[in-house]
Amino acid sequence: MAVARRTSRDIRSESRLIVVRALLAAEETTRNELAEDTGLSPATVSTIVGDLLKYGIAAETGLLNGTIGRPTTGLRLNADRGRVVGVYLEDRFLEATVYDAALGRLADFETVTDEPVEDADRVIDLIEHALDTALERAQSNRDEVLGVGVLLPGGMQRPVKAESVPDAIWLHLDRLRDRLGLPVVVDNPLKAIATAELWLGAGRRSANVVAVNLGTGVGAGIVQDGAVVRGASNSAGEWGHSLLAFEGRQCLCGRKGCVEAYVGVPGIRLTLDETAPGHPLAEVAGHPEFIEALGAAAETGDPAAIATIERTAHYLGAALTDLVAVVNPEVIALTGTTTEPLSDRLLPIVRDRIRDDAPGDAAVDLSVELSRSCGMDGIAAIALERFMRDAGLVTTRVLPTI
Amino acid sequence: MAVARRTSRDIRSESRLIVVRALLAAEETTRNELAEDTGLSPATVSTIVGDLLKYGIAAETGLLNGTIGRPTTGLRLNADRGRVVGVYLEDRFLEATVYDAALGRLADFETVTDEPVEDADRVIDLIEHALDTALERAQSNRDEVLGVGVLLPGGMQRPVKAESVPDAIWLHLDRLRDRLGLPVVVDNPLKAIATAELWLGAGRRSANVVAVNLGTGVGAGIVQDGAVVRGASNSAGEWGHSLLAFEGRQCLCGRKGCVEAYVGVPGIRLTLDETAPGHPLAEVAGHPEFIEALGAAAETGDPAAIATIERTAHYLGAALTDLVAVVNPEVIALTGTTTEPLSDRLLPIVRDRIRDDAPGDAAVDLSVELSRSCGMDGIAAIALERFMRDAGLVTTRVLPTI
Repeated sequence: MAVARRTSRDIRSESRLIVVRALLAAEETTRNELAEDTGLSPATVSTIVGDLLKYGIAAETGLLNGTIGRPTTGLRLNADRGRVVGVYLEDRFLEATVYDAALGRLADFETVTDEPVEDADRVIDLIEHALDTALERAQSNRDEVLGVGVLLPGGMQRPVKAESVPDAIWLHLDRLRDRLGLPVVVDNPLKAIATAELWLGAGRRSANVVAVNLGTGVGAGIVQDGAVVRGASNSAGEWGHSLLAFEGRQCLCGRKGCVEAYVGVPGIRLTLDETAPGHPLAEVAGHPEFIEALGAAAETGDPAAIATIERTAHYLGAALTDLVAVVNPEVIALTGTTTEPLSDRLLPIVRDRIRDDAPGDAAVDLSVELSRSCGMDGIAAIALERFMRDAGLVTTRVLPTI
Repeated sequence: MAVARRTSRDIRSESRLIVVRALLAAEETTRNELAEDTGLSPATVSTIVGDLLKYGIAAETGLLNGTIGRPTTGLRLNADRGRVVGVYLEDRFLEATVYDAALGRLADFETVTDEPVEDADRVIDLIEHALDTALERAQSNRDEVLGVGVLLPGGMQRPVKAESVPDAIWLHLDRLRDRLGLPVVVDNPLKAIATAELWLGAGRRSANVVAVNLGTGVGAGIVQDGAVVRGASNSAGEWGHSLLAFEGRQCLCGRKGCVEAYVGVPGIRLTLDETAPGHPLAEVAGHPEFIEALGAAAETGDPAAIATIERTAHYLGAALTDLVAVVNPEVIALTGTTTEPLSDRLLPIVRDRIRDDAPGDAAVDLSVELSRSCGMDGIAAIALERFMRDAGLVTTRVLPTI
């Protein structure tokens, strides 16, 4: 990447995105309230609202009668401007979700294949079918679709299998776009959860947030000063592959001692095995099912389950402290399949550990909280942003698009 | 911190800083070249240059005869606009350095006290004396000083001693400002090396840089998308207190297993002791002297010295890989007292280790290089920025000032 070049177009772009996000957060608002919420001048807000109305991204809702002064015109995002569709692909699992243009979820479609699909044509067929089925369920059609966002880990992580589905599709994105006849944007899950947190989560009240995904894999979506941190090659946030322990447990990525090897679900399984070899919970197939069962066993007082969760909490707290040290967020928002079932036992230990270990006053005002941010919502927001880009309203540069 | 509020003033501020940094990098340039270098429109550049000329921050250098077209007016930063002074305080050591307004070093003054000075009045006396002496050496006087920048670790790191000098002075900054009768800005060393790298180092060619300081303590100054990452409470970059090894070596900060406990000088001493207990190098007093001696011993083929440096290189490479995973910079710029004497042996191992361990393609385009960035240059740049802020030209918000 060359030296940061910010033009006056970029600056208008940024202001427009801030107004769009404020509209989204407010549901219904006014120009004056937008100026107050965003810190932009009333004149700037008026100009931006004019642009958004012109492109149908915002809509007026009629006169609002406030308690004082003359009535003002209400504003909202124009949900009916069109649809955006998020697509998630992983091994044998495929999901398409249809959103309105105010990021309201309308319908989805999920499918699981008998075995991993490795042929690009077959993947494109499956995506097309999922997209059309989800659109049908949303009583929408392709003509209404402003953009499609595809969540793909490939290109941003060391691939475990060189021929896994995401890699196959990465090589054939142009064919996917041609088949669908729609604008397609691709991004990795960490940037998508960061975007979801920025547009729909803690980013509404704080400019410095880290969204942490805890599942089979783990990673962080970083928001700094109100923008998603992408890094030089869109790889920022791979906290799951930073060290917990030098020369420690073997990680699937090839490195030893990664955070993911301790707090990803396979890592938690290993901790259980170290704590209580041969424990019956080890037999539970399926990672989310294992986590549910582990949480339930701890509830019934199973000492091995409790010890496993507590050990995991210390690993997680230590690893999150590293994010606090390096990035110094105001909010850590935890999401992913592991978070909810184990949160009652995880969170108190995690919070104590961060408070004890964080350098200086870095964690004094930190909030560690549960979040419902998901990559699907984030990739839908990114697809909407890309639509605004194509309309000439925003200039987001680093976004990989085809 | 509230939600990111960016006003049109902030946006002008950012463009102005970009032009000032481009002027600094170019030494002598023209409006057209500035537009080309910054990506700002010629009209925007003209307006900004007009403002900078008005406040005397830039100056015209007369007509330049290019090879084609009509002559254009040359531009440079106006070194004679005034002086900025950087002050560094640590335990028994105090330094003041005088810069011109184009960040050229003019003169400095260093003093070492017999014992740590813990009384705020005495510290203020010492600072005043150092400032005046350095100004005298620069044939300048206080009237010319646009601002003073003080480099202080306190407030951003867990203090080792509660009553160390930095803490004493943190509590009495208003008295320092009143005594000097000058604007004073304070920042921590990691933000200062990031600023130095942004203004004077690799930030000139890349928007995503991490400056890594290796000395008694270690830390990182992070530049993302052309701006210094400060975090919610100005504590970002405390990479030295992120984990190398869960429950590993005791760090001075109180945490166990910090990067600093392995690659800070005391950590390197410990590695030598583990490698070759009772080795004569352990007797070398003074941390920079020890590092010099270690490097020299390795040159003569001392196997313990070589093993210690190589072990340190593996620790450092692993720890830098974590920065690559989380922040994904394009350049890692290594500075600090440890870097130069050991670089020949450190760098090849560090680069290999990062290439092997970094997730996916995060390190493919990474450059790991030596840098001369120092906190003193950075705090001078921050003092200059603060002067522009007081003139109403920039709005840098997070900067702690008094």
